Formats: sequence, C-alpha cells, structure tokens
Amino acid sequence: MPSVEISPLEAGCVLTVDLSALVANWRTLQTVCGEAECGAAVKADAYGLGLEPVAKALHDAGCRTFFVAHVFEGRTLRALAPDADIYVLDGLRPGAAAAYADHALRPVLGSVPEMEDFGQFCATSGRRWPDGSSLKAALRLDAGRRQLGLSAYDLDRADHLAPLFDVTLLLGEIARRDGEDPAEAQIDAFDAMRARFPGRRASLANSSAIFLDAIPLYDLVRPGYALYGGNPTPGRPNPMRPVVTLEAKIIQMRILEPGMRIGEDLAWKAKGPRRIALVAAGFADGLPIAMTDNKARSGGVALAQGRRCAFVGPIAMDHAALDVSDAGYLERGETVELIGKTITIDDFAAQAGMRGAEALVHLGRRCHRRYRQA
Amino acid sequence: MPSVEISPLEAGCVLTVDLSALVANWRTLQTVCGEAECGAAVKADAYGLGLEPVAKALHDAGCRTFFVAHVFEGRTLRALAPDADIYVLDGLRPGAAAAYADHALRPVLGSVPEMEDFGQFCATSGRRWPDGSSLKAALRLDAGRRQLGLSAYDLDRADHLAPLFDVTLLLGEIARRDGEDPAEAQIDAFDAMRARFPGRRASLANSSAIFLDAIPLYDLVRPGYALYGGNPTPGRPNPMRPVVTLEAKIIQMRILEPGMRIGEDLAWKAKGPRRIALVAAGFADGLPIAMTDNKARSGGVALAQGRRCAFVGPIAMDHAALDVSDAGYLERGETVELIGKTITIDDFAAQAGMRGAEALVHLGRRCHRRYRQA
Repeated sequence: MPSVEISPLEAGCVLTVDLSALVANWRTLQTVCGEAECGAAVKADAYGLGLEPVAKALHDAGCRTFFVAHVFEGRTLRALAPDADIYVLDGLRPGAAAAYADHALRPVLGSVPEMEDFGQFCATSGRRWPDGSSLKAALRLDAGRRQLGLSAYDLDRADHLAPLFDVTLLLGEIARRDGEDPAEAQIDAFDAMRARFPGRRASLANSSAIFLDAIPLYDLVRPGYALYGGNPTPGRPNPMRPVVTLEAKIIQMRILEPGMRIGEDLAWKAKGPRRIALVAAGFADGLPIAMTDNKARSGGVALAQGRRCAFVGPIAMDHAALDVSDAGYLERGETVELIGKTITIDDFAAQAGMRGAEALVHLGRRCHRRYRQA
Repeated sequence: MPSVEISPLEAGCVLTVDLSALVANWRTLQTVCGEAECGAAVKADAYGLGLEPVAKALHDAGCRTFFVAHVFEGRTLRALAPDADIYVLDGLRPGAAAAYADHALRPVLGSVPEMEDFGQFCATSGRRWPDGSSLKAALRLDAGRRQLGLSAYDLDRADHLAPLFDVTLLLGEIARRDGEDPAEAQIDAFDAMRARFPGRRASLANSSAIFLDAIPLYDLVRPGYALYGGNPTPGRPNPMRPVVTLEAKIIQMRILEPGMRIGEDLAWKAKGPRRIALVAAGFADGLPIAMTDNKARSGGVALAQGRRCAFVGPIAMDHAALDVSDAGYLERGETVELIGKTITIDDFAAQAGMRGAEALVHLGRRCHRRYRQA
C-alpha cells in the first residue's frame, strides 16, 4: 500500500503508540524472567503498530533479540538494529537463503527440507557470517503443538545437516489442552530433543507462557502481545501497561426521535430520544463489524467524555454510530476513545469475539499515527 | 506502515489483482446503468487492493468520477487523475477545508455545521476552483438510513449556505428492512429534498442498489465492492468477474498419525492418517481466525492442486494448517489458493461469517502484490 502521510487535521482516527509503556512492559517482562533474556516478537509490522519505531525503542532500551515472521521484515529490522540477533520464525523460503545471509538473519528451520536447503546453501555458497564464522539458524522443535517443528524422527534424518551451520537457538512451543499432552510431557519431549545439541540456547515461552510456573524459561523468552499491552494472564489483572490508544473524530452529531431506526439494515431502533455521534471509524479502520449490537451479542462501546457509550446500528466501512445520550455536550471534530486505559485492547477485541492480537494487527491502516517517545 | 518491498521469492502470500477484470466489471456496470454515469468507490486504499493501480486502471478506461472517504485519499488520487471529479464521502474535517481546495476535492457535506464550515471558508478564503468558479461540494441527503445526511429540516436551516458554493451532486443512500421505511418512501423523501436544487445531479445507488429495479439510478452510480469482484446480487449468480487471487506458500508438509492433535489448543484431532500443509498465511495476512473449524461452524477451505482442502487447527498469526490428504503430491514452496475463481471473495468471507468488503480490506498487508494490467 502507498504510505500516504495522514495529518492529524485530516485524519478520521488517531492511533497513539506509547513507546515508553512498551519499553516499560519489556523491562517488566525482563524482570519477571530473571536470568533468561527477554527478546521481542515484532512480526507483522510489530503487531500492526509499526516495526521501525517499535523495534528502535526496544533496541534503544537494550533489547538485542528479535523475532519476525518473514525475511523482508528482518531486512527492515536489520537496518535499525545492526547488532541484534534476528530470528525469522516462518523459516526459509525455497531459493531465498541468500537474503538471510545478506542481512545476517537467522532462519528458524522446522523441517528436514528446510534444513537441507539451508545446509546446502551454507556448504556451497561460500557465504559466511559477518565475523567470518558459519551462518546461523535456529531449529524449531516440535514438543507437541505439531505446527511447524522438527520431530525426534526428523532430527534422526537430519543428523548430518546440523553441522553445516551454527545452531544458535532451539525453539519450541507448548500446546495446552486439559488432560491431553500435558505441559510436562511436552517439556520432557523438548528436553529430550534439546539433549542432542548440548550447550545450545533454548526458548519455549511466548507472552502467556512467561507467566506459567509450569513452563521453564530456558535462556530466552519471546513475548509479543504482552509487549503491546495485551494481558498475558487472562482472567487475572493485567501486569502490562496499555500501549495503544485509538481515537476517532466525530463527523456529525444528530438527534433521533423515539422509534427512529438507523443504518443500512434499520435493525436498531431508538427507544427514546437519543443523541447520536457519527464517528470516523469503520471496519476499514479495524473496527470489526462483529462489534455491531445484535440479538446474539451486545455491541461494542467507546468512551465519550469518559462515559461508556454503545455503538448502534451497523459498523460501516468508514464510520459508525455511537449513542452518546448519556455523555455531555459533544460536537463535530471532538474525539471519542475506542481503545485506551479504560477500554483495553483485550476489551476491544472481546466485544467482537476476537483474539486481541487479531484486532491489533488490523488497526491503524488509515489512521494518523502518533508515537509517544520512550 | 513502512512500505517494504516484498519480493515474490520472499513472500508468504501473493495477492494478484486482475485490473483487466476490474475494468471489465466497471464496463459491465456502466452498461447496466445505461444513461447514468458509472463512477467508482476507491476509498480505503481501493478496498485494500491499492488505490493507485486501481484508480489508474479505471481512469485509463474512462472513469471520471471517484468516491473516497478521506481527504488524504483524495490527494493521492488527484495526482493520478487530474481531470476527475473526486468526492470525499466522510465530509469535511473541521479546519481542513483548504486541503479540499488545494486538490480540487469535493466534500460530501452531511450536516449543517459542515455546510457552515465549508460555506464560511468559501466566502472568506477567496479560494476558487481551478477554472475560477466557486468551490464545489456534494450534499448528502438523508432519505431514511439516518447515518450521515441532511434532513429536510436541516436543509431549511441551511438555506442561506448552499449559494456559497457550487452543489454539484445530491447523494443519498437507501436503507432496507422489510415493512419498515420501504424504498419508495425513502425515494420520495429523497426526491422531495432534491427538488430544492433543480438541475443538480443525483446519486443513490451503490453496488447492490444498481441491480434493484426499485432504485432509480439518477445521474451517477457509485459501485465499490462489485468492481472488486464481489457479488452485488447475493443469492443469485455473480454478474462480476473475480478480481482478487490470494495464494499462500507451503512452508512445510507433515504427516499426522491417527489420534494426533494439532495447534495451540489441540482441539483438532486426526481421525486417520492425514497429510498436512502448513501454509504461510495467518490472521496477520487477513485469514480470519473465525475461519477455524469448531463446533459452532465448519472451518474454511483452500484449493490445493484444484482440490478443496479444509483448514485444521487454529489459524495462527503467520500460518495455518491445511488438511491436504485428498490432494496430490505437494511440497514446500508450492502454493495453495485461498481466494480465486473457485473460492470467491464472497465465499472466503462467508467461511468466517464476515461481510466480503470487511474481509477484502484486511487482505494483502503483508503480501507480494501482482497487478495484471488491463
């Protein structure tokens, strides 16, 4: 997409990313993790919040290990973090190995064909790490989640390949389902595979796993959602500071008389006289249609002058209607808050029945973005 | 967001936009509309497909009236369509009137305060249209949908304002709900308001309304979703050509033994030996988590070697698992088709219980994009 500059004056929505809260969250996680190093997952444009400002703030604060999903994300990151360890989680695209070497990126290899591909490149290309040593990679070990990972059987088959590059990290993931493949069994499986690579660093924990006593932190943790303010301990108080604020401007105020309906489908009916704010946030801005009030689920809310106000009528592509009858005087150009300290990113997503990370990555495509510096 | 170049080699997903199909759709709609002019809604980065290539193809084909939501979208569009009429649907942001004059954009004014703001700017700034005439604007008339529009009462109050600028279009929308505010009543209301502005052009129809006999087309129609291949006649055959193809690369192939579970929640269980393709498309790429197979709803499908294959286990941020047991031999690096001629954008969205336009705008943020020229 073209990166159009969107001025605050012209914007419908303003997305504020509090980099000091982001850095505070990283420090909190580092404290919780004790001896283990706290890295950062900044894939998908740092969960939609902007890879460059987010990674720069974390790097300035001392973060030295980053996780991206794709090699092109790693390339952007390398330019601003020349000394960081950068792992590319989605592995190695066939034929793309040179790009990893060019930017000193470490693919996370999760299958024998990937190991063969990378091993062959290392053996035949003559390419070396900037310091002259072998190229580096992580291995993704399948402890039980069974998505993207090497089994013990795979490791047997690939025994001859691992020496072709420098395995700097053993990465795993834990699946959770009561009574089925309990964490202990998965950790045992991970440890058994790990034993083949003595002295190599290991990483098992994402945002949530950091807070689970049953999950060992090993040498490195890789939080993502928690860094951005999401609650890594669902059902308990959020130990993280909110990072994201999303505000939308009021395009128009209007009065509905009792019995009037609103929206394309006329499904919502005013039970009394209502004051409605039409706000410049719609589904193209990441306000999910699923937040529309209907029979199956009560709709979403936003804050107008500190009061919770309900969305009424369908969420349109570019705007939505908010019942602000209980808020104070409002006029065109004022803003309402869709996400912030009161309605957190977790609350926002829950209103649409979505996971927080999914809601997060869809925000801000069309907002003015403001970064509060760390 | 930074506009990183994503090469086809390094991409996880490839989004192909068939500009010749887009232009054919515009021509089809123009034929259906007869005497009325067919414009194009290209708001929200042309529904996520890229404002610049999309608008250029339509402009080259002869389209001369465009609808955007925001003034910054209009500014980008103006650079490539110097002679087009550009309407800004979300109206006028307070204090931003000069930007509309700078780029000869026409705000769609939907409230008295907006008319006052624009009228005052026209009267006091001395700014003129490029040809020396008055600045131009549309009025949004509320025929019954009651979102963003002037009522007859508003028009009474604003009678003195309309002469301050040149009203070049009267724009309305029709709400639909059986038995409630029937279309005829709304059309009558629209016509009654329209009568105050003799000789002005009018527009009522979006993609769907173009195909409804009950809705007059007036002078100008403004399709959006149909241009991009969405079906404007739900439940009937789609008169539009598909525009979007979304393909994802296979990261890894794996075999599941009977009884094995997959994914973070281990909810999906293999009933027999299954062959699974892990593909590089996840919710950050616009593959909704709601497409995950669960008890409430059967999950989404993708095409592998022409066979429909089901997603299994949860859709992750960067990848998803597809049960390709019934497809032929597949290996890492091959692609599967998520959206195309067989699984249309409407089908794709329906699998997640979403509206097509909402699914469309979330695609392609992290894809290599290919434009098939018109």
